[in-house]
Amino acid sequence: MTLEECLRRIRPLEPWAMEEARRRQGTLTKPPGSLGRLETLSIQLAGIAGDPRPQIGHKAVIVMAADHGVVVEGVSAYPSEVTAQMLANFARGGAAINVLARAAGARLIAVDVGVNADIPMAPGIRSRKVVRATRNFLHGPAMNRHEALQGLEVGIAIVEEEWRAGLDLLATGDMGIGNTTAASAITAVLCKRQAAEVTGPGTGLSSPGVVQKVRVIEKAIETLRPDPEDPFDVLAKVGGLEIAGIAGSILGAAAQRIPVLLDGFICGAAALIATGLAPGVRPFLIAAHRSTEPGHGVILAHLGLRPLLELDLRLGEGTGAVLAMPIVEAAARILTEMATFEEAGVSNRPETE
Amino acid sequence: MTLEECLRRIRPLEPWAMEEARRRQGTLTKPPGSLGRLETLSIQLAGIAGDPRPQIGHKAVIVMAADHGVVVEGVSAYPSEVTAQMLANFARGGAAINVLARAAGARLIAVDVGVNADIPMAPGIRSRKVVRATRNFLHGPAMNRHEALQGLEVGIAIVEEEWRAGLDLLATGDMGIGNTTAASAITAVLCKRQAAEVTGPGTGLSSPGVVQKVRVIEKAIETLRPDPEDPFDVLAKVGGLEIAGIAGSILGAAAQRIPVLLDGFICGAAALIATGLAPGVRPFLIAAHRSTEPGHGVILAHLGLRPLLELDLRLGEGTGAVLAMPIVEAAARILTEMATFEEAGVSNRPETE
Repeated sequence: MTLEECLRRIRPLEPWAMEEARRRQGTLTKPPGSLGRLETLSIQLAGIAGDPRPQIGHKAVIVMAADHGVVVEGVSAYPSEVTAQMLANFARGGAAINVLARAAGARLIAVDVGVNADIPMAPGIRSRKVVRATRNFLHGPAMNRHEALQGLEVGIAIVEEEWRAGLDLLATGDMGIGNTTAASAITAVLCKRQAAEVTGPGTGLSSPGVVQKVRVIEKAIETLRPDPEDPFDVLAKVGGLEIAGIAGSILGAAAQRIPVLLDGFICGAAALIATGLAPGVRPFLIAAHRSTEPGHGVILAHLGLRPLLELDLRLGEGTGAVLAMPIVEAAARILTEMATFEEAGVSNRPETE
Repeated sequence: MTLEECLRRIRPLEPWAMEEARRRQGTLTKPPGSLGRLETLSIQLAGIAGDPRPQIGHKAVIVMAADHGVVVEGVSAYPSEVTAQMLANFARGGAAINVLARAAGARLIAVDVGVNADIPMAPGIRSRKVVRATRNFLHGPAMNRHEALQGLEVGIAIVEEEWRAGLDLLATGDMGIGNTTAASAITAVLCKRQAAEVTGPGTGLSSPGVVQKVRVIEKAIETLRPDPEDPFDVLAKVGGLEIAGIAGSILGAAAQRIPVLLDGFICGAAALIATGLAPGVRPFLIAAHRSTEPGHGVILAHLGLRPLLELDLRLGEGTGAVLAMPIVEAAARILTEMATFEEAGVSNRPETE
């Protein structure tokens, strides 16, 4: 599926399924509205699936991995090699996302979209390298438009494959040393904020390191002038290939009517790109948590999303998204499995109340 | 186990196990601290279990049920019969807590501590009735001291039974029409607030109903003068039997070194009683969520607890506590299952950073 075909396939949620789910919530043995956001989530899931009794059977987390030329500017606490080393850790099952995906019963697919190393074949690792790392955007665009498009289409294609294998709930994840620099730059441009407002320590940069990171982002935006009205231009100039891959996954999931659990800051930046390209994607999104990175709160406010969890995470890999999976499943199961007042012979409150 | 024996058995968390868990968190393949509250939770679990690699195998939610004489004053949107009807719904598996406990892989134990009806025998329902409903505290103490003690000891005994069957994580839950009135009264006294600050609509009372509820609570506190320095006195005069049972469960769990996931407002009021009787209980507590009932925020601030979930729940039954179980399990599994930098051959950041 090309990007263009994918964008054409994104349709609104089904109002009849949402209305039916809303009506059913009012008949279940609990005070109306007492399950709070679990109820609104169940109605969203019904609208996405086009089914008033949505089923969450198959779950997956797709972790997009890529390297960033801008790392040479000293914007990360870790060296670039760690991206490839962590892919190997994913393949062996020892990373946080492996542990949490196992706990959630979700399959993990890690995708090399642009890692700066040869990644050995391994189960659960897909090789879709567009280039070996994006270029240093301090000295020119990170990608040309063709590379950015390829990154987006990798995301669309991976979701299409996973949808064929069965997919009812997608969690997005990222791995890429240096990617909070790209995410901060995207957020500054698309949310029209100063770089300093949306830039944080990432994996653990010192305070002088953060100052340097802000300077690099400011300089890049000043020189490259990414167009805030053209998310594709922003992605190519100051983005990254894992961000392109995640944005593509989000678009692909919306096209296949699969709900998307967004992880933290990097996935939030990808969601800015995706909703910029197709505003119709927004109703398919669920925010899992709020990262401690300052830019993430700005993104959530911009998209009008409220996170489910308050865990002060800042790891990425899709960890927060996978931690929220049981809540989304629970929301769906409430609609399907709870008894109504009538079925259970429970007195409902008087209509006059 | 008597209350007195139980209180004597509550000991501090094990510092050596916490220190070992903290050290291990620093060696795992992630930036230090990047798993946020999942890391602090894992350290708490290690301290509770006295084991740097705590295991969460057996999980249970104990739902304490009782009726409240004060319901005749028009303080609830639902009639008293609903308490017994909901116990029957629990027995048949159709309530929200059944659905969510199944989803979380937790067993459900519902306990009749003081329901105003004969509850038929059923699997998963325990009959430990102290009295058929507490008395209307507008006209005198809800319980005498002996009844309140019996309620506490029911909670201690049930946890002891469940501990023998295997229990690594306890979720607390409540069922009792009228119990937000008792919980608001307890909160007003023990947190030294005006009744109006800690009283809300409960299951869905109208605004005039809330005004009446506040008046009833104010009048009861004025007449009965529950002693804020004596949580036992507060429990007996304006509490309820499910609140006594929950407070007993919390104490029993701390005595057996089992972590306690607190549900919403009613369980929060029970935690005020339990920590009042034994301040050493506090480190065993985990707040699952923040109810929309205004008193719950006051309790969480008073106990210094921050909830894991932001779901706007107000159902009770232990629903919020069970929804948070996967997060607690995930915290434990991170300690046990993640690879270290050394094991995975991943470059750690330079010491000088």
